Amino acid sequence: MAAANNGEDCMHVLVTGAAGMIGRKLVERLAEEGRIGGAEITRATLHDIVAPQAPSFAPFTVESIAADFADPAVPARLVSGKPDLIFHLAAIVSGEAETDFDKGYAINLDGTRRLFDALRALGDDGTYHPRIVYASSVAAFGAPLPDLIDDEFLQAPLTSYGTQKVIGELLLTDYTRKGIFTGIGIRLPTICVRPGKPNKAASGFFSNIIREPLAGHEAVLPVDESVTHWHASPRSAIGFMMHAATLDSEKIGPRRNLNMPGVRATVGEQIEALRRIAGENVVARIRREPDEMIRAIVGNWARGFSPKRALALGFTADESFEAIIRTHIEDELGGEFVR
Amino acid sequence: MAAANNGEDCMHVLVTGAAGMIGRKLVERLAEEGRIGGAEITRATLHDIVAPQAPSFAPFTVESIAADFADPAVPARLVSGKPDLIFHLAAIVSGEAETDFDKGYAINLDGTRRLFDALRALGDDGTYHPRIVYASSVAAFGAPLPDLIDDEFLQAPLTSYGTQKVIGELLLTDYTRKGIFTGIGIRLPTICVRPGKPNKAASGFFSNIIREPLAGHEAVLPVDESVTHWHASPRSAIGFMMHAATLDSEKIGPRRNLNMPGVRATVGEQIEALRRIAGENVVARIRREPDEMIRAIVGNWARGFSPKRALALGFTADESFEAIIRTHIEDELGGEFVR
Repeated sequence: MAAANNGEDCMHVLVTGAAGMIGRKLVERLAEEGRIGGAEITRATLHDIVAPQAPSFAPFTVESIAADFADPAVPARLVSGKPDLIFHLAAIVSGEAETDFDKGYAINLDGTRRLFDALRALGDDGTYHPRIVYASSVAAFGAPLPDLIDDEFLQAPLTSYGTQKVIGELLLTDYTRKGIFTGIGIRLPTICVRPGKPNKAASGFFSNIIREPLAGHEAVLPVDESVTHWHASPRSAIGFMMHAATLDSEKIGPRRNLNMPGVRATVGEQIEALRRIAGENVVARIRREPDEMIRAIVGNWARGFSPKRALALGFTADESFEAIIRTHIEDELGGEFVR
Repeated sequence: MAAANNGEDCMHVLVTGAAGMIGRKLVERLAEEGRIGGAEITRATLHDIVAPQAPSFAPFTVESIAADFADPAVPARLVSGKPDLIFHLAAIVSGEAETDFDKGYAINLDGTRRLFDALRALGDDGTYHPRIVYASSVAAFGAPLPDLIDDEFLQAPLTSYGTQKVIGELLLTDYTRKGIFTGIGIRLPTICVRPGKPNKAASGFFSNIIREPLAGHEAVLPVDESVTHWHASPRSAIGFMMHAATLDSEKIGPRRNLNMPGVRATVGEQIEALRRIAGENVVARIRREPDEMIRAIVGNWARGFSPKRALALGFTADESFEAIIRTHIEDELGGEFVR
């Protein structure tokens, strides 16, 4: 890295989808650190469908842009300031991409491709070569799945969202290979404990059964305790992104998309961890209410990974499901919960 | 299938890329058979960048369309007659897609997607649901590769062509899952013996070293005899397409793209087979001229497959490399060769 008074280590960061849960936490982390990979962050462009906010203590200039990523003019506008580092998080989520076919493709595929093509156009003079960290998902995989998915298992998504994410991964790889930018895709585990209100996502219960009881509310468990899943805390997810932003690109090689490490736990193990940390009263707020539809959906999901490449590249996950719960209590509840 | 005098079994077939080597042979086969899956072929729409020809004996009405598949209006025009069965072969080949980035994406990705979207628009009333057979390629795979690639090995292409083909596969799968059409993608092995003149494709020598000596010409072998590859004759490739067109779709399941069977042979085994069939004089026309660039390219290619799904679904390949050579002599040389 260049010396601190050299212009080269002033960094301009773009975050698309910066108002989402991960986006907000990422921007907060960038603001706290003020630097990334030895470079000072001097400028941040934050995009989302609503104007994203940066923390007031952010030590860099912030431009907040509210724009529809499906608008063909938007991706080029977002990168017009030639950001050095791009976190591309903007996406239509799984459920909406499934019900609104056109919108999912317009944002997740066309938007992503336009972003990549805008970077290509800017780089045509040979002086611009940004790094892009692309948020992909375990939705890249579809049943039948092995008990542990290794780094060479095929991407055969069973949703439009997963399809669009994998297409983004393929474009990322090809554009990187062509020298247009340095792309790294990270397939995020299910984020747990997801803060905020219970939502209707089929995966919502994995977080609901921890977050709601800790807040003194009842939570519904729609599946058996034997259901096994792959989790990462929001803090770990942000750690993955920060690591992907600074990692030696050469070490990644031609396969640019990585399965992230996580914590493998059955729902029963999740509940046991909650019991150890918070006690029986809290656990008693979980109400069993089997839902055949959710059981069927979850039955097609990844149960675990053997993410050797990511581990070798230095990505680290939470230590245990207990650690995930403690992180939630620390980061979201100020260290307290409703006993 | 419906009875012969029922309107339902009159079939309209569209072939995109019908003037290419595989396209021409497919149309010839359709003309010879006159029927497919118990239905009479009454109409064929043949497309390519130059007007494709059907054999004069074809027992169906032929519409020949010369049009650039990159033209946004073309895919919808090609399907406007609501073909029941589509063989989608139109593509920019590997070398050209690598040197002309925009053209490769315009035809292989955008053209394919527009074709699929045109079918979607036509099917909006719920009465149109065609079958589409999509020609994909072993270029879907990229090194490092196992000795035998199984049906669960990831698609990690190392070329723009491979990337575009895999994106087509993913779209085919998602559109099929959404009920827009019935799609089947077949990953063709290297076609050998490819008729015609030697070309500059890096894979050309696999065919050149058989075809040219049999025609009395010298051929250049740029790699070691230990190089191992996966071959199918043109006749087998057409057989795959015909089988994909009539196969029970339910049996395929959600993963719509299949590795095709083939013949695994080292270059040394290819030459041995030629010697057994045609003798030493013919083999002596192969001249060793090592080419480091071609060696490096070929080193990244698939050496073989374990195509269990395709075999279980009834796809069949040539019996041996000798059979591939005999097929070439029979189909292309009228049973004769230059001793």
